[in-house]
Amino acid sequence: VTADAPAPLVAVVGGGSWGTAFALLAAGRGAPVRLVCRTPAQAERVARDRVNPAYLPGVRLPESVEVTSMDAPGALAGAGLVVAAVPSRVVADVAAWAAPRMAPGAGVLSLTKGLDPRTGRRLSEVWGQAAPGVPFAMLSGPNHAEEVAEGQPAAGVVAGEPALSRRVQGLLNGAAFRVYVNDDLTGVELCAAAKNVVAIAAGMSDGLGFGDNAKAGLITRGLAEMTRLGRASGARDATFRGLAGMGDLVATCTSHHSRNRRAGELIAGGLRPHDVEARLGQVAEGLWTVDRLLELAARSGVELPISAEVAAAVAGKPVEACMRDLMSRAPAIEE
Amino acid sequence: VTADAPAPLVAVVGGGSWGTAFALLAAGRGAPVRLVCRTPAQAERVARDRVNPAYLPGVRLPESVEVTSMDAPGALAGAGLVVAAVPSRVVADVAAWAAPRMAPGAGVLSLTKGLDPRTGRRLSEVWGQAAPGVPFAMLSGPNHAEEVAEGQPAAGVVAGEPALSRRVQGLLNGAAFRVYVNDDLTGVELCAAAKNVVAIAAGMSDGLGFGDNAKAGLITRGLAEMTRLGRASGARDATFRGLAGMGDLVATCTSHHSRNRRAGELIAGGLRPHDVEARLGQVAEGLWTVDRLLELAARSGVELPISAEVAAAVAGKPVEACMRDLMSRAPAIEE
Repeated sequence: VTADAPAPLVAVVGGGSWGTAFALLAAGRGAPVRLVCRTPAQAERVARDRVNPAYLPGVRLPESVEVTSMDAPGALAGAGLVVAAVPSRVVADVAAWAAPRMAPGAGVLSLTKGLDPRTGRRLSEVWGQAAPGVPFAMLSGPNHAEEVAEGQPAAGVVAGEPALSRRVQGLLNGAAFRVYVNDDLTGVELCAAAKNVVAIAAGMSDGLGFGDNAKAGLITRGLAEMTRLGRASGARDATFRGLAGMGDLVATCTSHHSRNRRAGELIAGGLRPHDVEARLGQVAEGLWTVDRLLELAARSGVELPISAEVAAAVAGKPVEACMRDLMSRAPAIEE
Repeated sequence: VTADAPAPLVAVVGGGSWGTAFALLAAGRGAPVRLVCRTPAQAERVARDRVNPAYLPGVRLPESVEVTSMDAPGALAGAGLVVAAVPSRVVADVAAWAAPRMAPGAGVLSLTKGLDPRTGRRLSEVWGQAAPGVPFAMLSGPNHAEEVAEGQPAAGVVAGEPALSRRVQGLLNGAAFRVYVNDDLTGVELCAAAKNVVAIAAGMSDGLGFGDNAKAGLITRGLAEMTRLGRASGARDATFRGLAGMGDLVATCTSHHSRNRRAGELIAGGLRPHDVEARLGQVAEGLWTVDRLLELAARSGVELPISAEVAAAVAGKPVEACMRDLMSRAPAIEE
């Protein structure tokens, strides 16, 4: 370690399922890890029990993982990498909190998949404004926390500042979890935000009792609309065909772990969209993203038929009518 | 109906699950349908019971569907469309049987997803040689027979001779089943053949207890290798991103209806590949396709890492070693 090398300590802000699994993953790779929970009460419980019962029951954090909370002085002190594993709706606040507390030379790795619900900005823009000049990257891909925590094989994509991206790759790359570097940050961010919305539609299809044929069609058309939005935003098509695009979309639309898929299923079953997150006990980012995504698409002159029907369903349109309108809308050509 | 218009009778050759479901679909759209079973015994049973217990139990064929067998004289007499719903390994024989029996002006619609196991040729080439000058098209896409028979929403892709393709679209297009015409027959054929092989790999991943993250990664890399093969064969990338490519791949890799996925699962569970079809009671086309697909790829100078490991597993390599070798093979770039 030279004087210029960033400190090896990894501070993970946010003790949800993915933050906890990420802490475990990094600790398993030998990094010193501090898990910074959002409340002192959560930090106390996790520090005492070494498990996170609400989000990742049955997974034990090694003693080497230090646990603290955002209220603690020095929560980010000495950390060379700050990993933000928080819902999109608090990213702006967490970025404002983190910026003055970060050690010189530290970088930010964002795990959040969404847009800023207040402004519709990409989260790299939110972090860039709160912490100008701080290297930023994001990690995406088909990475259900439960499976990563169990050491199941998975692969992720890191995009952002090149040196930081390579550092994250070096930190995480192992036999079970493989990391690829992608230089299309805009594409990776839009994939991550948009796939949650398509997953809500896939869950609605499941909830109405439709089968695998219908869902495969939805996923295919979902990737096409995501790709169109990306193209209009300067992203690369290849990103959408890769792990951060197609890979994460398929996992999110088909897995029983997926909260967004489950949100669609619950709405199709008659639960009010307003009550979905309480029932899930977790955030379904697609519910926060969909309207901002449609605004972005409208500014870019791109149509997102699936996302538009998800927005309509969230606003109260009967799910049967949404799916019927979607299925009967014949695209002129397949793409 | 003018003197030049093809006769409306649809003869479906092959009383397996998809042939039976197709007969039901066409009959439901008002077409006169004759189901031509491969043996008189099967034809007798289906004609008597109006169900096909071995392949599509619980689905009742309307009385309007005529049932006969390939042994009957005039099995194809008066049919304007001959639909071939038979396994790839008998396509050459069925084409040779059908060619002299077809009415003038009749076309062939193939439902088979594979290559000729003896020669590796695409099935359009097999039909073209047996029945030169006869219009040919194929129907593909995420179309699990069980769901189509239940009237679940689904979409398919028809490719081949343009007028015949549009005729098939007109015949089948309805509220529940939507048909898109694609002019890239080579692409649609290669998608259909290759996706079954990737689905065997996906089933192996399932059989080893790997989760949704790993499978989403396999599906993503599977589509990339399919697309590379298509590109080298003059097919269009867009076909691989569409319903016949990505759509069918996702359905086949994730559905509990999928025989090819199930074949991989059984092999991972220790069943000898030789015994898989007996256990399934149905054909798993990927087992017949994989070696021919790899030969085609080798001639085109394309690598198919997933298909190569499936071939190795079918030849006796332990599935754990196949999956380990696949996961540890780091692509230089994502595509």
